[in-house]
Amino acid sequence: MRISQLVERSGVPLATVKYYLREGLLPPGEATGATRARYGEEHVRRLALIRALTEVVGLSVARTRAVLELMEAPTTDLYAALGHAVAALPPYVEEQAEDHPRARAALGTLGWVYDPGYPAVAQLERALAAAESVGMPIDDERLRCYGEHVHRIAELDIAQVPAGDAGAAIEYAVLGTAIYEPVLAALRRLAHQDVSASAFGDR
Amino acid sequence: MRISQLVERSGVPLATVKYYLREGLLPPGEATGATRARYGEEHVRRLALIRALTEVVGLSVARTRAVLELMEAPTTDLYAALGHAVAALPPYVEEQAEDHPRARAALGTLGWVYDPGYPAVAQLERALAAAESVGMPIDDERLRCYGEHVHRIAELDIAQVPAGDAGAAIEYAVLGTAIYEPVLAALRRLAHQDVSASAFGDR
Repeated sequence: MRISQLVERSGVPLATVKYYLREGLLPPGEATGATRARYGEEHVRRLALIRALTEVVGLSVARTRAVLELMEAPTTDLYAALGHAVAALPPYVEEQAEDHPRARAALGTLGWVYDPGYPAVAQLERALAAAESVGMPIDDERLRCYGEHVHRIAELDIAQVPAGDAGAAIEYAVLGTAIYEPVLAALRRLAHQDVSASAFGDR
Repeated sequence: MRISQLVERSGVPLATVKYYLREGLLPPGEATGATRARYGEEHVRRLALIRALTEVVGLSVARTRAVLELMEAPTTDLYAALGHAVAALPPYVEEQAEDHPRARAALGTLGWVYDPGYPAVAQLERALAAAESVGMPIDDERLRCYGEHVHRIAELDIAQVPAGDAGAAIEYAVLGTAIYEPVLAALRRLAHQDVSASAFGDR
């Protein structure tokens, strides 16, 4: 299809498509003349993914490019590739630390992998420090409860990773982490409401 | 104590303490002269709470005032007061809608309370719409899994609401909702890593 049809099919404005081509987020079409190129279904799919990452998830163009590059790089270590890809997602913890004592202790209590270089470890450290700073530290009972139930949720998430295709697995990991997180947060508030209705509401 | 001691005890700068007094976030001290007042432990506690709400949770001064007012208002309906208080937290969904079809269907599947005026309902609607828009709608299996485990987490959260003191209950609900949400999000990512390590990593 021509670029005008790509614009129509994808719903992405022409100037934006050209910008993505220039920035290397969208691979060039097949040249059919000095100033013309032909685009395929893979371009439509790629534009939908770029849109999801930038507009729905809210990633910068640079971070979107990093995710797309990981999806295309041949990999023999899917575990590492998934880790790098999810690291493109906020929250971004700037502090470099060699150790994350609160997170290390929490992961030790849960018996989970502790890898101080994994971005979510710094994220957990900061969240635990914030809880302490307002006088509501996470005690062991809460940690074990949250950990047990979040682990069960993660088991379902990981069971649904597309098998055999690293690019599809990375796409699922990044979008699924970002997109389902707000669903979980909303469900927690609604579960609070549901439990409170019987506890406090006489409803 | 004098205002200078309040500054020292709380760690909040004098100009900020005066600003909170002017804005009505901090109740006035007991007047001991034309320009002097005496402050008590309740002022130290209040400043710590204001700091938690503004600096750690990130609320605006207006939303912080709304939470503090709810904590002080006498209430016979704790369920409603908790709902109003948690509504001060982001994400703020601006759209006014009479119905939230995706959230209604999801809550119906889960068998939970559906109250279209509750802010978290609009939040869930938006999160479900975002999942659809990237081609990853929440299917029933995922919804039931997330719902079941988040409900168990919410049961622990609600069981720990301080009993008998509406102000303390509101403080716990607002801080606990905001402060433990990032802990859960970080734990989910770490649980993904823990499950992936055995699924993909040969670790």
